[in-house]
Amino acid sequence: MTTAINLKDRSLLGLKDISRNEIESILDRAAYWEAQTEKVIPILSSQFVANMFFENSTRTRFSFEMAEKRLGAEVLNFAAAASSVEKGESIYDTVRTLESMGIDAGVIRMKPDGILQNLAETIKVPLINAGDGNNEHPTQALLDLYTMRKKFGELRGLKVSIIGDIRHSRVARSNLWALQKFGAQVSFCAPESMAAPELEQHAPYISMDEALQSDVVMMLRVQLERHATGILKSGNEYREQYGLTEARASKLSKNTMIMHPAPVNRNVEIDDAVVESAQSFIFSQMSNGVPIRMAVMERALRK
Amino acid sequence: MTTAINLKDRSLLGLKDISRNEIESILDRAAYWEAQTEKVIPILSSQFVANMFFENSTRTRFSFEMAEKRLGAEVLNFAAAASSVEKGESIYDTVRTLESMGIDAGVIRMKPDGILQNLAETIKVPLINAGDGNNEHPTQALLDLYTMRKKFGELRGLKVSIIGDIRHSRVARSNLWALQKFGAQVSFCAPESMAAPELEQHAPYISMDEALQSDVVMMLRVQLERHATGILKSGNEYREQYGLTEARASKLSKNTMIMHPAPVNRNVEIDDAVVESAQSFIFSQMSNGVPIRMAVMERALRK
Amino acid sequence: MTTAINLKDRSLLGLKDISRNEIESILDRAAYWEAQTEKVIPILSSQFVANMFFENSTRTRFSFEMAEKRLGAEVLNFAAAASSVEKGESIYDTVRTLESMGIDAGVIRMKPDGILQNLAETIKVPLINAGDGNNEHPTQALLDLYTMRKKFGELRGLKVSIIGDIRHSRVARSNLWALQKFGAQVSFCAPESMAAPELEQHAPYISMDEALQSDVVMMLRVQLERHATGILKSGNEYREQYGLTEARASKLSKNTMIMHPAPVNRNVEIDDAVVESAQSFIFSQMSNGVPIRMAVMERALRK
Repeated sequence: MTTAINLKDRSLLGLKDISRNEIESILDRAAYWEAQTEKVIPILSSQFVANMFFENSTRTRFSFEMAEKRLGAEVLNFAAAASSVEKGESIYDTVRTLESMGIDAGVIRMKPDGILQNLAETIKVPLINAGDGNNEHPTQALLDLYTMRKKFGELRGLKVSIIGDIRHSRVARSNLWALQKFGAQVSFCAPESMAAPELEQHAPYISMDEALQSDVVMMLRVQLERHATGILKSGNEYREQYGLTEARASKLSKNTMIMHPAPVNRNVEIDDAVVESAQSFIFSQMSNGVPIRMAVMERALRK
Repeated sequence: MTTAINLKDRSLLGLKDISRNEIESILDRAAYWEAQTEKVIPILSSQFVANMFFENSTRTRFSFEMAEKRLGAEVLNFAAAASSVEKGESIYDTVRTLESMGIDAGVIRMKPDGILQNLAETIKVPLINAGDGNNEHPTQALLDLYTMRKKFGELRGLKVSIIGDIRHSRVARSNLWALQKFGAQVSFCAPESMAAPELEQHAPYISMDEALQSDVVMMLRVQLERHATGILKSGNEYREQYGLTEARASKLSKNTMIMHPAPVNRNVEIDDAVVESAQSFIFSQMSNGVPIRMAVMERALRK
Repeated sequence: MTTAINLKDRSLLGLKDISRNEIESILDRAAYWEAQTEKVIPILSSQFVANMFFENSTRTRFSFEMAEKRLGAEVLNFAAAASSVEKGESIYDTVRTLESMGIDAGVIRMKPDGILQNLAETIKVPLINAGDGNNEHPTQALLDLYTMRKKFGELRGLKVSIIGDIRHSRVARSNLWALQKFGAQVSFCAPESMAAPELEQHAPYISMDEALQSDVVMMLRVQLERHATGILKSGNEYREQYGLTEARASKLSKNTMIMHPAPVNRNVEIDDAVVESAQSFIFSQMSNGVPIRMAVMERALRK
């Protein structure tokens, strides 16, 4: 019998399969990091982290890189050209290659669903999921929970409505799995073409009016090009039906948090003025992403 | 009353609106940095700089990155794909995002004119302009002034001719504003399609023959694709009328400096042999860019 | 008479023109670096290395960056967009620019053949060839030799067959030049359209059956798009005639090494199961690339 930390406990593939305790300890540790005044605390010096972005995302990569460098890690970035390495086979070979070269942990984002689990079983270093297909985006949900907990003190009983393209949203899924472990009440609100039938058993679909009654209104990014032939032909149409317009925002309780994983399509999902309003926590979410990712990288690599 | 350094005095958006004294102190500090034999002097350690290039420029980014790393800063690079983030709104959101993540200063290059000022008013960290549209490119002009001052001792009375696409040149504008503060005599030389009418009140347009009588002949990069339908259909035609050919270079006084912000279209703006001649300061300009940017980053971030 | 190290002895342009002794000392030094348990040994601190990739290659760049950072160097990356800087003239100007900015060494990869030598004669800092056209890829061959030497103890008398697109392979050429200096017997195996006539005087072309009798079977990457109109229209056809299929691999001596410079087109050059088999040294090659490149960078920069 050993007390050594299992490698699998150092990876972070998703929030569905980890315990509430584990999530809580990451949130607590993020609070520790947020409280530090020193910008660089090199507990990960001489450790090499590869940020492997097979799907581009400047913001998420940037947030991880800030976190890694604040912990003193050596950082190598890899961004696949949109045209190349996208198939599972190529991703596998690239990650094996970087592992062979001696990286100590990898942060990975990719388009295909369902290959991360297999990858993690083959790769020997910890892997952090920075978004895989429509499956999970655990650090985004962790920073969302962190932001909610900071405002409300606790997550139990919180009414959280997630609004928009649920079907294609890994953010929605990771939030669902995590929030329910804490006893929050998650609801979805989406046009039919953006609903995810397989999630119906987990959370109810409610109307926009009901959604606005929540403690947290989490708007998702819409990729209109995906829905060009549906009923929501334009950003304007989407905004009218599912956007957090100034009119709708004025009906929210003053205590309701407005969240969005960013980047926002301004005046589509959320009106310009609402993004910048006092009830919007969008920029706080971004700030909180750094200590969250510091906690996640520390968990992956601390000796 | 406070003696604290104002944040606005730490940003560098352009040279039009800062004083001669301030420019002089940057040039002097660059001379200090150039004289250092130690390559890395980490006065900016634990400070995070984001190089945000919404318009690509390997050379300028590289020069800033050298400067930042020689001062021991933590550097994060961001290069927007040519196709994506170019609108002012997206630029604003991206910069706000990186600010939220905790950067201490941002170096920014972008295509659109006229949004940098607004951006700087919203963003709380110092912003350094690495080229915005056709407006200003202050660090380029600073390194140009530095290179001239190094050769001639002082700038007062210096005859500087700027030749080429004045209309689209932020380099021309930043040099104009800065050189005139020091009492230099700036003239322009350009085909009509490349002239900038709004600058006529600030500096005279002269002929190529007159321009060759100057102390400094500053050639600008021509983007021929912009002028495809004009009278200057080919590089050859441009070279014949406005290029610094070997024949023209042979008529220059031995004391005249040849400058160019690079990259040069060889045998268009300047003949190959002239680029490599003893009167060409093009590679000195590049060298001098690093201490200039060290001075600018130090000014932005030194505590 | 001076004992100072000549700059040319610090560059690494190819293996054709350096001595067996010099190669051996790089291999020995790589063994030293491989044996270190400390991940970062900053003998190159405050030295600036530019990785200038005018032709994209994430893996090779990554391997160099690992090596450089493990030696504590400051690293700046440059990757040319596929569309831009590819002509010799632009490459020259870019390298001169980065040199002017104060880099201490440059790692360079590019598409055009035959300009590296000229470049190295003009540039004053050491240049490391990370692959130039169809000419040489010296660090790849060094890591190949290192991997062979590690398994077989010595290279003299070793039978090495290089199979595939010899014509376009800088890996084949660098291996040929280096292996022959050590008394290894190099043979080629290729369809006529992929043979390199000018190499016939240096090494025999043999059949696939003969090639399988070797101590080392080195498969090359095929770029099928280059041969679309030839007899090898599809990956399947290539695999049947020149692929290391499971059937062919089963005929190899148990002592035969399978090598490939990667990335592999799985089930074209080598069957999936063979890539992962115990006789495959493909992932060892990748691991060994890092200490080899540490040795090469140390040679370039150590004071």
